[in-house]
Amino acid sequence: MIIDSHQHFVRLAKHPEVEGFRQAQLSAKNPDVLPSISDADVKKSLEQVVSLMDARNIDVAFASPRAKAMATHEGTPEQNAIWADLNNGLILRACQLNPGRFAPVGMLGQHPSCPSEQVAKQIERWTKEGFVAFNFDPDGTGGRWQNQPFTGKHNYPVFEAAQALDVPLVLHGSESINKNFPHTAVQYLVADITGFVQLMMAKDLFRDFPRLRFLIPHGGGALPCQIGRWRAIAKYNSWASPDEILGNGNVFVDTCVYNDLNMQMLFDAVPLDNMLFGSECDGAFPGVVNEQTGDHYDNTRRYVDDSKLSAGDKSRVFAANARRVYPRASRWLKS
Amino acid sequence: MIIDSHQHFVRLAKHPEVEGFRQAQLSAKNPDVLPSISDADVKKSLEQVVSLMDARNIDVAFASPRAKAMATHEGTPEQNAIWADLNNGLILRACQLNPGRFAPVGMLGQHPSCPSEQVAKQIERWTKEGFVAFNFDPDGTGGRWQNQPFTGKHNYPVFEAAQALDVPLVLHGSESINKNFPHTAVQYLVADITGFVQLMMAKDLFRDFPRLRFLIPHGGGALPCQIGRWRAIAKYNSWASPDEILGNGNVFVDTCVYNDLNMQMLFDAVPLDNMLFGSECDGAFPGVVNEQTGDHYDNTRRYVDDSKLSAGDKSRVFAANARRVYPRASRWLKS
Repeated sequence: MIIDSHQHFVRLAKHPEVEGFRQAQLSAKNPDVLPSISDADVKKSLEQVVSLMDARNIDVAFASPRAKAMATHEGTPEQNAIWADLNNGLILRACQLNPGRFAPVGMLGQHPSCPSEQVAKQIERWTKEGFVAFNFDPDGTGGRWQNQPFTGKHNYPVFEAAQALDVPLVLHGSESINKNFPHTAVQYLVADITGFVQLMMAKDLFRDFPRLRFLIPHGGGALPCQIGRWRAIAKYNSWASPDEILGNGNVFVDTCVYNDLNMQMLFDAVPLDNMLFGSECDGAFPGVVNEQTGDHYDNTRRYVDDSKLSAGDKSRVFAANARRVYPRASRWLKS
Repeated sequence: MIIDSHQHFVRLAKHPEVEGFRQAQLSAKNPDVLPSISDADVKKSLEQVVSLMDARNIDVAFASPRAKAMATHEGTPEQNAIWADLNNGLILRACQLNPGRFAPVGMLGQHPSCPSEQVAKQIERWTKEGFVAFNFDPDGTGGRWQNQPFTGKHNYPVFEAAQALDVPLVLHGSESINKNFPHTAVQYLVADITGFVQLMMAKDLFRDFPRLRFLIPHGGGALPCQIGRWRAIAKYNSWASPDEILGNGNVFVDTCVYNDLNMQMLFDAVPLDNMLFGSECDGAFPGVVNEQTGDHYDNTRRYVDDSKLSAGDKSRVFAANARRVYPRASRWLKS
């Protein structure tokens, strides 16, 4: 079995009724009625991604709303809760309409004013509906990084819910209105980097929540090529080392890197138990072809196939780790 | 010959008279008289770094003021110009007092209001004094990243001066007052990452300044492990690819990464012509020991020695590239 742990239903999020609803919210029209998207439209929006999964022999994907569309720096706490619920409802329906192919990962109605009890309630509600994990933006201010570090006590209600319900939090950036940080090329990686380092710095976090699990996407950002630096700085500052937060099973990374070289670096730097297969298909650069392979850049499966890992290790990366780290996914899997 | 292209005179910057001067500036006392540091004090502040260079067989280092102390988000444009001149004067004296061991790299009196003509004049002044390159903070707002991207036309006076005088600009972050971005662990890497990506995005920059050269320190930040992602995004967005800005000789990286694994990744990902030996010794984590080697983390020389590079390639990385990219350094070199 091959599980893609990192997919976004970008085309579903781009449905005009969905985008129109958010625009109406942000222009203070606050529609009373949620947009009504037909099952046919939901299924159609997924045709492309399902056909790519078939072509690549991906059995199941953990799918979440479009990351850019979280954009929780906009809107009020109330609007953002409704917006997250709308997106989660669509994700759930899309998963149900394609049985055996997807498991739902949720979006959260974060807000710079950080009503994290509300966010915790959303985790509870959507976990009951079958969600297996949630994207959590460590910024939440549109690339301006004006909040306190996400690891602080103000987010403890979120961490309590995530630990109690056994759902990992995926530290994923969102839309950036900061021109220094274009979203897919910089902001997401900045979120990965500060996400990982803040987890090294947070002395009490994993003492208070020993079973809390974070997923750092995009191959851990700079982790593979800066792990030496972070080991040194951690020692100098008496932070937890990268090895400690990885080794304790609190932090995981995915394989969203886009050539053989970068995939091998990931395998060389990060313990295999901490690695989940992922592709972002077809989100960050749909259809763009890697001239080295003649195939889409986001067919990350072939980079894993090409690697020096043994067959047993590949199957850990392709499925076993995802099943262990996302235990609630089992109900969505056929076998 | 071995040239360390990335050193900061941290201990010199920590001299109480120097730190006291900046504190007096920032409390609006604006002292009329610059602090008077004796030659003995200047030499003493460098004893440790010279002995480490001797132990590691480093012949020469390109040395600049403490990166954290640039902190150009504080102070007025006038204060920051004086502050940069003070630091540059000390660096120059330190280089002159240790003939054949150092070449001076300057600090610039940047300011969020960006009087880049003033910065350009500082480049002219200190280049005449013998400076071989300048650190340029792509943020300049203390980790808040509130300026427009540094590649914009507002910085053209700086780029004109740097190209005309044939001095590279080292894109180096500084102090961060943003708790999300601790300076050595996150802010510097964020500066590297957005620095590199902004250079991919800036369509006109290298058309307008074809001989302008930037050095991205810290092994290029995330470049080695995210080059696949950036190739894909560049193609999707019609930006210059990483290969283009490296191949055209506009962008270089140093070897400030801190174990054998990360050094080999750098050599595997970035063309050797674009790579300059560097160590940050003894800045970011002075004295911290790498348990894998039993030696200081920042003895990066041994990671190059341990690598699979041929002797000829090592000598390019150790010296030939630095001499080519920093042509003004020749007057400071013995041979």
